[in-house]
Amino acid sequence: MPDTTEMPNSPAPLLPPPWHSDDRSRPRIRDVRVILTAPEGTRLVVVKVETDEPELYGLGCATFTQRPLAVATAIEEYLRPQVIGRSVHDIEDLWSMLAVSSYWRSGPVLNNAMSGLDMALWDAVAKARRVPLWKLLADRYNGGKFDDKAWVYAAGGYYYPGKDLDGLQDEMKHYLDLGYSTVKMKIGGVPLADDLKRIEAVLKVIGGKGENLCVDVNGRYDLDQALACGAAIAPYNLRWYEEPLDPLDYLLHAALATRYAPPLATGENLFSMQDARNLIRHGGLRPDRDVLQFDPALSYGLVEYLRTLAMLQRHGWSGRRCVPHGGHQFALNIAVGLGLGGNESYPDVFAPFGGFADDCPVENSLVRLPDIPGVGFEAKSALYRVMRPLAEG
Amino acid sequence: MPDTTEMPNSPAPLLPPPWHSDDRSRPRIRDVRVILTAPEGTRLVVVKVETDEPELYGLGCATFTQRPLAVATAIEEYLRPQVIGRSVHDIEDLWSMLAVSSYWRSGPVLNNAMSGLDMALWDAVAKARRVPLWKLLADRYNGGKFDDKAWVYAAGGYYYPGKDLDGLQDEMKHYLDLGYSTVKMKIGGVPLADDLKRIEAVLKVIGGKGENLCVDVNGRYDLDQALACGAAIAPYNLRWYEEPLDPLDYLLHAALATRYAPPLATGENLFSMQDARNLIRHGGLRPDRDVLQFDPALSYGLVEYLRTLAMLQRHGWSGRRCVPHGGHQFALNIAVGLGLGGNESYPDVFAPFGGFADDCPVENSLVRLPDIPGVGFEAKSALYRVMRPLAEG
Repeated sequence: MPDTTEMPNSPAPLLPPPWHSDDRSRPRIRDVRVILTAPEGTRLVVVKVETDEPELYGLGCATFTQRPLAVATAIEEYLRPQVIGRSVHDIEDLWSMLAVSSYWRSGPVLNNAMSGLDMALWDAVAKARRVPLWKLLADRYNGGKFDDKAWVYAAGGYYYPGKDLDGLQDEMKHYLDLGYSTVKMKIGGVPLADDLKRIEAVLKVIGGKGENLCVDVNGRYDLDQALACGAAIAPYNLRWYEEPLDPLDYLLHAALATRYAPPLATGENLFSMQDARNLIRHGGLRPDRDVLQFDPALSYGLVEYLRTLAMLQRHGWSGRRCVPHGGHQFALNIAVGLGLGGNESYPDVFAPFGGFADDCPVENSLVRLPDIPGVGFEAKSALYRVMRPLAEG
Repeated sequence: MPDTTEMPNSPAPLLPPPWHSDDRSRPRIRDVRVILTAPEGTRLVVVKVETDEPELYGLGCATFTQRPLAVATAIEEYLRPQVIGRSVHDIEDLWSMLAVSSYWRSGPVLNNAMSGLDMALWDAVAKARRVPLWKLLADRYNGGKFDDKAWVYAAGGYYYPGKDLDGLQDEMKHYLDLGYSTVKMKIGGVPLADDLKRIEAVLKVIGGKGENLCVDVNGRYDLDQALACGAAIAPYNLRWYEEPLDPLDYLLHAALATRYAPPLATGENLFSMQDARNLIRHGGLRPDRDVLQFDPALSYGLVEYLRTLAMLQRHGWSGRRCVPHGGHQFALNIAVGLGLGGNESYPDVFAPFGGFADDCPVENSLVRLPDIPGVGFEAKSALYRVMRPLAEG
């Protein structure tokens, strides 16, 4: 067993580290800090893993904007004490220990807490290896293969008081100017006839190409509404029709899929491999077209997301059907390194987490990732302005 | 809209109360307090709802022993500010407001927070009406019908270091002495051959009656193990075979149910009506024998549990198939008032929440409920010793 006496002030690990080689036993986690900050009004929960190598740290985001203090308490009081003194390379083992230690599982508080820590550990491990996270993932899990660029789309098209069709069109033109060819808008918040006018207005802006438009219901429809909307929008052959129904009502999705032929998308409200598996088994989705949006930050981190990808493969689904929700840099690395279908992005909301590294413009809805160690937070100056004081603190 | 100016120091309600009659607009919630206490080493999270009637309060239990401080933060920082000033009678409306306010749903932190508050509100409403909660529930939801007594069983039979077959038998004899005829023991923690010896030892104590013994795997088996154990125990025709498999893997349950004919039980790890519905739809369980253990304290409180019961009815399941997990006084009221199949109880663990009111002994695994207003915490002296300082504080 590795010698833990060099860190006399930290608690002894609860379990012996699983790796005994020198390479795997260093660096160790010296501390886990939670920093609450709200740049541009978004309440972020940032996790910093400090190691026993003075320059080496990892950053993660455990943000749950509606319940940030509950997430912070979960990390500080329950996760932090269990991981201090362990090697940063023990991610999978730490994950299992933390997951079972609460007995009762899942939900956005515990999942965001765990995935913020998971993200910070992956950032630290990639930095320790001096490689970008996407490269580390490609080498470890994808036979060294990675994508040169990630496909991304601009998520927006929200309802706002006073926002008319002109305002919606201006927003979408702005996304096109930023280099996106595919955009997403909300529907389901007004009567269908009004939504159809909004869809037509956006289609006009993007040259009538339905394959470049996604619509997102955020689970508001019942089956009748979803079928009616589906019948109305089917002729547009949209890129996808997202979360039309209660995300946990798998049979409703199966019923809709018997009638709506173009692509459906869902998954951001499923928080574990088991939930994802139930969608795949019972939701009637079609592996040649439908889109899975499980978010590695909402669903227990990358350790669980790897299990979800393995489950998909066993069920005959390609990872290319996955386009994670959330628009964060972590999922962008996963998309490129593991060969997903792409990633969401929020050019104008959730700042400063939306968008990309400074020298990586979006062109034709494709974006290159920076070639710096870790997740790459440090290459995105608007974000790093927020995170830097934390990193140096 | 009711006049809220009488409580000048409380925030205005976020939504107008849905009821306008005098009867429904009083009493109002003056404050919500969270009290952390650990009698006999069990870390309890007690919720106290104080009202604008000086003598009227409600108590609830939001206990999540592995993450108590995260639950306390969720209640104090996010739930409390939303309910102050509202009528205690607005439970369903408050529930909906609190549930949507987090956007991301479910999980043991948010669910325990909400159900602790929900329980305290039901306690307060029943006290305001000067009736026991079981009577209030019977009148409101069950056509006035209630059971004279609740069927209960003694959950125990844990593995402990040094606990041999004699120790296990002594424990079970103790439960019989307390008035239980049905007992439950853990299995799945040792090789099957050893568990079979343990089962035989317990059967000897209870007169060989398999219908008076439940075994509980806590989700540890894979399908092969569950089938092997099932084949070995089927001849005993046990009361039930509980949580043999991953509780979220519904197809595994369906597979097991094709081979194991006696009753199966599961559900304590499903936290919402939607999860329960998926078990019913996809789990292959049999409405003439299997047992559903959804816990109203783990799964969002009684408001959600009422939806779960309505869902069961739509799917052809009787409420008599429900025997909630947990052994708490709240579920005991629900069992009697809504005509469930019974309730778990923990005579020797989770003190002081295990057990029953002082003047209500268990006889032949049946127990009467006290006839005092509310949930009845005040009639259980060991529990009320803990809660009284909180109630009076």
